[in-house]
Amino acid sequence: MIILYTGNGKGKTTAALGLALRNVGHGRKVAFIQFMKQSKSGESKVSLTGFELKQFGRDKLLTRDTVEQVDKELANEALDYARSVKCDLLVLDEVNVALYFGLITLEDVLKLIDEKEREGVLVVLTGRYAPDELVERADIVTEMKEVKHAFNEGVPAQEGVEW
Amino acid sequence: MIILYTGNGKGKTTAALGLALRNVGHGRKVAFIQFMKQSKSGESKVSLTGFELKQFGRDKLLTRDTVEQVDKELANEALDYARSVKCDLLVLDEVNVALYFGLITLEDVLKLIDEKEREGVLVVLTGRYAPDELVERADIVTEMKEVKHAFNEGVPAQEGVEW
Repeated sequence: MIILYTGNGKGKTTAALGLALRNVGHGRKVAFIQFMKQSKSGESKVSLTGFELKQFGRDKLLTRDTVEQVDKELANEALDYARSVKCDLLVLDEVNVALYFGLITLEDVLKLIDEKEREGVLVVLTGRYAPDELVERADIVTEMKEVKHAFNEGVPAQEGVEW
Repeated sequence: MIILYTGNGKGKTTAALGLALRNVGHGRKVAFIQFMKQSKSGESKVSLTGFELKQFGRDKLLTRDTVEQVDKELANEALDYARSVKCDLLVLDEVNVALYFGLITLEDVLKLIDEKEREGVLVVLTGRYAPDELVERADIVTEMKEVKHAFNEGVPAQEGVEW
């Protein structure tokens, strides 16, 4: 089964983290792979048996125009790792944005998803800008739609909320 | 700060669980209160220092028409517990539905939120049917919008996804 969280609202990565917690509770093994991230987020500091998180990115906010070769290499390393890791739940966090930025190819992602699904792995994809092909491919798709956000009113990002 | 997850899509409770995991990673104490739930969900079975989950409900799917006095009592017990618990992140899971079903009063929920915010607690509210007053009151509001759901196509609910 493939689950996709997209849209411009808060809650995509956190929903994937919640599924991770839920699956760990059921005794399953979770591999949580973060594209384009390298941060001291709460999820990267948590110690929980069965939950393994790996970040593949630089400590730098990317835009579509500032992508470098190293970013492509890191994103493809993430895919390589995803292919090899044994788990029951595989999260590809921000994979949609990695695709949007052209760091990885849709073909590689679809191939990975196919392989994992055949092995019975639950796959979760997150990030804005989900391509139509992934929306089509997924079994459950939720759009996280921003209704209201205090940051728009000048409130700074907050530990435990944003990271 | 008050965060509200509503809408008909998947990911509301799981996004709250993800914030819980994130905050535990930062060394904070989380109280996760589930209204109208009594189940062997993954989140209820997980053992994680700093994460305390309590369920206040019967093992029975409620509708607006099948509410009994005991459901009101349990939901108000949940509010009492929420008032007294010491934590950094307080999740009121499905509180919107408890309001919609008339199990608790909006006045009581607003009062609780005010108190907790004054104490510096991060409060997360989840559930469909969020009343306008809570949308107004919250700092961050995300609508989880169902784009696609395999269950609509006859796929049964699955452990680790739905619970």
